Amino acid sequence: MEKGRKGGDYRETAEQLNAAAAMTVRGVVEALMKKLDKEESRCMIHLGQGDPSTFPCFRTTPLAEDAMVDALRSAKFNCYSSSVGILPARRAIAEYLSSDLPEELSPDDVYVTVGCTQAIEIIISVIAARPGANILLPKPGYPMYEARAAFSKLEVRHFDLLPEKGWEVDIDAIEALADENTVAMVIVSPGNPCGNVFMHQHLKKVAETARKLGIFVIADEVYDHLVFGKKPFVPMAKFGSIVPVITMGSISKRWIVPGWRIGWMVTCDPNGILKNSGIVDSIKSYINISSDVATFTQGAIPQILEKTNEDFFSNIINTLKRTAEICYSKIKEIPCMDCPQKPEGSMSAMVKLNLSLLKDISDDMDFCLKLAEEESVIVLPGFAVGLKNWLRITFAVEPASLGEGLNRIIDFCKRHAKQQ
Amino acid sequence: MEKGRKGGDYRETAEQLNAAAAMTVRGVVEALMKKLDKEESRCMIHLGQGDPSTFPCFRTTPLAEDAMVDALRSAKFNCYSSSVGILPARRAIAEYLSSDLPEELSPDDVYVTVGCTQAIEIIISVIAARPGANILLPKPGYPMYEARAAFSKLEVRHFDLLPEKGWEVDIDAIEALADENTVAMVIVSPGNPCGNVFMHQHLKKVAETARKLGIFVIADEVYDHLVFGKKPFVPMAKFGSIVPVITMGSISKRWIVPGWRIGWMVTCDPNGILKNSGIVDSIKSYINISSDVATFTQGAIPQILEKTNEDFFSNIINTLKRTAEICYSKIKEIPCMDCPQKPEGSMSAMVKLNLSLLKDISDDMDFCLKLAEEESVIVLPGFAVGLKNWLRITFAVEPASLGEGLNRIIDFCKRHAKQQ
Repeated sequence: MEKGRKGGDYRETAEQLNAAAAMTVRGVVEALMKKLDKEESRCMIHLGQGDPSTFPCFRTTPLAEDAMVDALRSAKFNCYSSSVGILPARRAIAEYLSSDLPEELSPDDVYVTVGCTQAIEIIISVIAARPGANILLPKPGYPMYEARAAFSKLEVRHFDLLPEKGWEVDIDAIEALADENTVAMVIVSPGNPCGNVFMHQHLKKVAETARKLGIFVIADEVYDHLVFGKKPFVPMAKFGSIVPVITMGSISKRWIVPGWRIGWMVTCDPNGILKNSGIVDSIKSYINISSDVATFTQGAIPQILEKTNEDFFSNIINTLKRTAEICYSKIKEIPCMDCPQKPEGSMSAMVKLNLSLLKDISDDMDFCLKLAEEESVIVLPGFAVGLKNWLRITFAVEPASLGEGLNRIIDFCKRHAKQQ
Repeated sequence: MEKGRKGGDYRETAEQLNAAAAMTVRGVVEALMKKLDKEESRCMIHLGQGDPSTFPCFRTTPLAEDAMVDALRSAKFNCYSSSVGILPARRAIAEYLSSDLPEELSPDDVYVTVGCTQAIEIIISVIAARPGANILLPKPGYPMYEARAAFSKLEVRHFDLLPEKGWEVDIDAIEALADENTVAMVIVSPGNPCGNVFMHQHLKKVAETARKLGIFVIADEVYDHLVFGKKPFVPMAKFGSIVPVITMGSISKRWIVPGWRIGWMVTCDPNGILKNSGIVDSIKSYINISSDVATFTQGAIPQILEKTNEDFFSNIINTLKRTAEICYSKIKEIPCMDCPQKPEGSMSAMVKLNLSLLKDISDDMDFCLKLAEEESVIVLPGFAVGLKNWLRITFAVEPASLGEGLNRIIDFCKRHAKQQ
């Protein structure tokens, strides 16, 4: 272009967009990856992302692969999808979720999404379209919410999850934060990043609080059913008659196929409040101008959801239970770390750093950068999920690698410990 | 929620979003579908959408299916993708496009996208992030651009494609429309909805005009290589040294798999103008907060792009050539219709309605609604692509169905013709 380059200068815009993008897990992980020592002979150990799909012990069930191949080979699903998703897929998702609920969901409540990420994009975009709206997000939380909100210029207000109460929602904080422009609150259940599992009574209290405030609940249940402590998984939609719930989920975690990009967004709204308020229409409209899920992968959904046997699930749960224990017990050995609660669900735990016991580490990011450089181990700095000077450690890793990774962290902490 | 429902009223927001969504091809097609007579015994014939994948004569090559199955069965691609796409896929796309270009593209120029739709979403979102920006779009055009621009509050200015000049770009109009806030112009090549093929000299003139104006060119080449007249397909990126080009494409059309959702966005920018201006960073950042393409489908891309044999392509081209001829000759029989140019590319033609020859049809939408109701034939009203009282007729349909559909249109027009 010639000298004027009138329309061309995007550097300021790029800064805003970059800031949003840098908030994401992968934005931070990318920065850490750059620090890996290329001369290092030991292999890199990634405890920074909930994706154990490359380990043989976490390989998905052959039945799910068969379902995908069958759908593809049928050549029935090479065509465009309808924007909300094809009916057999929506029906199967409605049935899958309904089995845990007091009321049957309809396929019309279901939108098939490109993983849970697109569900986040949709709901944040819809909420942000209302001028002045704000949303309540948990701290710590999953940063894609913050990133999409920043991009959409949606105001975010944070409420705490309380480590001393097993990472329960600070209900009082929600009441104090909400105002007449608050539209919704997000709960990630089972908890990412904390690995906690919410109790029935607590979720009910969340629902009642949201009802009182006139907001709805976005339940991010991407880790649904991945629980291995004493508490069962309770879907938020159980309380749909108290308050409207938008449940978002995926086969990414339970079936260990995050790369398949099959997710959903479901309105659990027996009283029709979301419908009457226009939110359902807004969701449909946004979906109409959005990317679809590959049609043949939708074609595989019924077989995947209906036919996967319990053995596959219980094997995964047992492996996660074991790796969560390895993680928790190793962390306990480390003087400068404190894990306030043994993880009982999802794939990660939050660990508090005591920097006063370390001689040359300035903060969580500094810890993670040096750890990547010196030990080829990636963990996520807590600031990325909203808790400065904490770490999010993913334990969904093949047990031997996890043990090795944690041993390297132990060595690292010893080397950087202050002399007593 | 209780009576206040403070955050709850989305009806106004829904109206704006609905307006954007209603602009899309599928928004309009949906409205037409509702008019189909449920008692009708004849099957519905869909001449409204560029998706012939359900017809046996348009079935994709078994090689592409094999590539997908191999990638899936390898279990190497169950993991998350990098945001820009996995390297082997980007490398294969760079090579596929480079074979027609004077300069080799690098994998770093390539972003794998969820079909061409996501490429549109990305580029419109990035441009809209600059306050006050505007974009030049062709009229007629592909309405997803308008829909995404409306959602992103990006100003759109339309330039004409000239039917009397074989749907060439009105170059003078572009010069008159652009100002210091104009960032880019879009060209859809081969043409959708017009079925035209742009000549080398004309595209060069477009490039030179864009350069003069200080804007870049977005080349929507989703129908790349689908040409069957005398003119060859010329990729816009050939002129990348004159003006930066962002090429967007997909395997959806050439391989007849729109449901697979594999597309790309490629910066052809040998002079580094997009990079220096910050646009490349903005694209990367937006992609970082967007949905990824299913990783295993990316894993299949190298095999699909490298191994598909010419026989498959030439069969498809021959079928399209035949159906374009059926379409053009049948339209010629209809007094109230005029197709200014025999289609030479893509999958559709634009046809002008002469309403003065019809007794009870008020406009193009009225025509299409009544046609759907009375004849179970779907065609797209021209207003949806920017030309009121025209029609977009898709001829990428199995020949017998296409003939039958056009015969029904002939009957319909006879029945509604004014008495002479």
